[in-house]
Amino acid sequence: MKFGVVARRDKAEALKLAYRVYDFLKVSGYDVVVDEDTYRYLREFDESDILPLEDFDVDFIIAIGGDGTILRVEHKTKKEIPILGINMGTLGFLTEVEPHETFFALSKLLEGDYFIDERIKLRTYIDGEASVPDALNEAAILTGIPGKIIHLKYYIDGGLADEIRADGLIVSTPTGSTGYAMSAGGPFIDPRLSVTVIAPLAPLALSSRPMVIPAESRIDIRNMTITREILLAIDGQFYTYLPPETEITIKLSPRRARFVRFTEEIYPKYTMRLKKRF
Amino acid sequence: MKFGVVARRDKAEALKLAYRVYDFLKVSGYDVVVDEDTYRYLREFDESDILPLEDFDVDFIIAIGGDGTILRVEHKTKKEIPILGINMGTLGFLTEVEPHETFFALSKLLEGDYFIDERIKLRTYIDGEASVPDALNEAAILTGIPGKIIHLKYYIDGGLADEIRADGLIVSTPTGSTGYAMSAGGPFIDPRLSVTVIAPLAPLALSSRPMVIPAESRIDIRNMTITREILLAIDGQFYTYLPPETEITIKLSPRRARFVRFTEEIYPKYTMRLKKRF
Amino acid sequence: MKFGVVARRDKAEALKLAYRVYDFLKVSGYDVVVDEDTYRYLREFDESDILPLEDFDVDFIIAIGGDGTILRVEHKTKKEIPILGINMGTLGFLTEVEPHETFFALSKLLEGDYFIDERIKLRTYIDGEASVPDALNEAAILTGIPGKIIHLKYYIDGGLADEIRADGLIVSTPTGSTGYAMSAGGPFIDPRLSVTVIAPLAPLALSSRPMVIPAESRIDIRNMTITREILLAIDGQFYTYLPPETEITIKLSPRRARFVRFTEEIYPKYTMRLKKRF
Amino acid sequence: MKFGVVARRDKAEALKLAYRVYDFLKVSGYDVVVDEDTYRYLREFDESDILPLEDFDVDFIIAIGGDGTILRVEHKTKKEIPILGINMGTLGFLTEVEPHETFFALSKLLEGDYFIDERIKLRTYIDGEASVPDALNEAAILTGIPGKIIHLKYYIDGGLADEIRADGLIVSTPTGSTGYAMSAGGPFIDPRLSVTVIAPLAPLALSSRPMVIPAESRIDIRNMTITREILLAIDGQFYTYLPPETEITIKLSPRRARFVRFTEEIYPKYTMRLKKRF
Repeated sequence: MKFGVVARRDKAEALKLAYRVYDFLKVSGYDVVVDEDTYRYLREFDESDILPLEDFDVDFIIAIGGDGTILRVEHKTKKEIPILGINMGTLGFLTEVEPHETFFALSKLLEGDYFIDERIKLRTYIDGEASVPDALNEAAILTGIPGKIIHLKYYIDGGLADEIRADGLIVSTPTGSTGYAMSAGGPFIDPRLSVTVIAPLAPLALSSRPMVIPAESRIDIRNMTITREILLAIDGQFYTYLPPETEITIKLSPRRARFVRFTEEIYPKYTMRLKKRF
Repeated sequence: MKFGVVARRDKAEALKLAYRVYDFLKVSGYDVVVDEDTYRYLREFDESDILPLEDFDVDFIIAIGGDGTILRVEHKTKKEIPILGINMGTLGFLTEVEPHETFFALSKLLEGDYFIDERIKLRTYIDGEASVPDALNEAAILTGIPGKIIHLKYYIDGGLADEIRADGLIVSTPTGSTGYAMSAGGPFIDPRLSVTVIAPLAPLALSSRPMVIPAESRIDIRNMTITREILLAIDGQFYTYLPPETEITIKLSPRRARFVRFTEEIYPKYTMRLKKRF
Repeated sequence: MKFGVVARRDKAEALKLAYRVYDFLKVSGYDVVVDEDTYRYLREFDESDILPLEDFDVDFIIAIGGDGTILRVEHKTKKEIPILGINMGTLGFLTEVEPHETFFALSKLLEGDYFIDERIKLRTYIDGEASVPDALNEAAILTGIPGKIIHLKYYIDGGLADEIRADGLIVSTPTGSTGYAMSAGGPFIDPRLSVTVIAPLAPLALSSRPMVIPAESRIDIRNMTITREILLAIDGQFYTYLPPETEITIKLSPRRARFVRFTEEIYPKYTMRLKKRF
Repeated sequence: MKFGVVARRDKAEALKLAYRVYDFLKVSGYDVVVDEDTYRYLREFDESDILPLEDFDVDFIIAIGGDGTILRVEHKTKKEIPILGINMGTLGFLTEVEPHETFFALSKLLEGDYFIDERIKLRTYIDGEASVPDALNEAAILTGIPGKIIHLKYYIDGGLADEIRADGLIVSTPTGSTGYAMSAGGPFIDPRLSVTVIAPLAPLALSSRPMVIPAESRIDIRNMTITREILLAIDGQFYTYLPPETEITIKLSPRRARFVRFTEEIYPKYTMRLKKRF
């Protein structure tokens, strides 16, 4: 069995814990690689174990940090490697265990006592090209200038679904339903579902409502404000400005995210975390 | 091929159109039965063709009226008979054609040029007994006294999902998502999905949000206000007061509603109707 | 100086604290009257000091309980007597001090070290008659049957403001803005303002929005569903069913509620309480 | 009596109508000045009547266009000149008459048969300096990067009112309540009120709610995200990027906007326009 280790770079405790995880796995006789970026912030790892995330080809990745760290892993790795997330962030919707549970969790993982929680992702096509990372949370099509609304039309499976004047449009997975889509008024979506949420962001029309559609549906988005650039934001991490006439299509990605879980419980696990959001 | 005819009873035009449909089908050589209730309001049908809805055993039902008429058919018939709805109501989310299209639609039906649109329904168990009609739109668990909140806990697949103090809880199908659930802040749900919306009605807690879960999930609802009766409303049509300690469970019904459609188009068909709601 | 004492009747600690407050004030040489209802639940008070709330004619009322206790005082007393609320409820938007601060608060009151916080109230006229208590929180015009919508028109200063199909209409003071009106989607209103919130409850129309209007405006509400009774609920305490054709008018009451406060601070006092709502 | 004429520059009909208004007023013997910018798009006006908006010192301004044209007049003129708005825009919340009513409206104006509708404005102080135009609609404090939330604290009259993580914060007048503030979930505010709406834009916390406070209150906004620029947008027209540590204060402006109205009616005038928003 081979492991990868990744840590949040701006938190000393996360880096230290990453080293202890690395050390524990090495001593236990496993192959371990460490993310190049993590190494840049803590030079204690063995140089021969350093690899860019893009080249990780391991059985499990141990990610120490918050949801941001996990999204970084998802955006950069090329294979569907199961991730065990150790929460060193503020909320941790994606992470599975708290820091003090780290080595107990690793033991369970080594003993095979875990589940794999698969999550769907969305792929965004820009003028037909899939050139941006898959979204584990959401693809947000936003006005290029904050406060200046954009005029969008969006089509579901080829039929016009709605026309909005808004700050943007959030297209979210179930995983992302507790994030930006919820700030835009969207519902909580059970992570087991294969559906997509489409939520207009601060729409002008009083009758606009979020929609839930099959994840397998094709969503085409057209910008009607030909003088205004749009901004595409994937998971709040990857940003790109697009010319007004860009044709954006969003579809279910063939790739999934895979998380190591020690319980199959969803309720109250997620719903209670939601209430803690401040 | 055998037909059933049902009409909205409080609208003379609906009753008249029902007679013309009945007459057309009879003259064309088909067996036709007419709903007893409809007959009570228009005595022109042949008495030998009159039957209670409960005993309808036909290939298609032609329902002339609004969504209320269709819900009446759904609640009373015992078989999954495809319904062709002719809109004599105000909004008509469930009906398929306008009155002037009636005979054109019948011709297409007779020629076999149609689709069957299957919709899921929810079954409510009261202390384990399925004694109320299946919901095509929603089961609403409401405070017995308007304005006096009830305190409910609800569990999804056995896990506590949320605890609310509210006017009630709406548990809706995709078909019902544009109805009471939407008034409670729920999203639009694509009718092809097999999901359930759970939306608290005027909740006290600011953090309550609607949820979308698999239709296959089991929802258990417990009333914590032991001094307050609850009211169960199925599709805004069937009402029953329940003692405070009643155990309510909601599950996917084994039965489905079946509608005759002449197009498989969903967008913009439903989304545009939504905007017309005044 | 003369005092009145009122306590929540269903909580032994509240009744006990009421007795200690009564005893302290008597011993300190003040005249004290005790609410008849409170006496019914704790017989220790001197029988000669017992009076119905309706006959209270004192300088201050010490109310021990939650918002419900204060609303009872407001609905029953005939004069604008300043109330010092001691919180023995769950949230306590109206109460000023916690139980352990009781005697410190009484000392400050006796020394004249306090402010009077005046709050507007709304008076409801039923077919022109002011026969129901003034609302400190809200007057709710609700469907007589939960889940069956009513069709209302409402007029502001004689002009049609909106026409709704909804579970009801909440007409709220700033004090009530954190209550039922907020559950219906209304905003937080600064208690210093002389305004009224009008919030439709679970409206059918997607374009319905809460309104804020001058408290001095006249609101006329007409029920268009001539077959359906309406329920008028004042502050969630006083309930009356009204025939469909009843003409309801809501205006600023000439009476105000008066609360003893030890600080003029509004922010973050109220906004933080709001977040604690569960 | 002296008049000013301003037109929307991107619409030929608006410019033509402006010329006809100008000509009518000149022929009727009045002094008329024409906005320099309008002249740049239609050269037919007498050159000696051209003046920058900043130098207008007239009794009335006739503004032909949409709300954008009126906002331009408000932002640039230095005196509180009453504006008669002729609607050549899409919605026209601020304009008073339709194009075909222009000369009838001018006659009434000349005969003195009109009302002045005064509207409050908000003044924004940037590090204590009032260097930006007063807001007739709203001051929006937005994230400098769309989709990247900012962390703000805001204080009302010196007390902490709330702390938000959001796309921004909308601080709106009653006039602006039907605009950006409403897209952010704010209520409709009666234009006669002297209040301010504060509405978080797509807030992360589920408990955030819009607030209505006295217009006379002082609002202080502090950006806690020290690495992120903020964008201040006044009325969706004037934009300025501000360093993270900028101290923003919003207060009632000493200036008001003044509109010529031919009816004092508010309901259903504004509420019905609202429903037409698409």
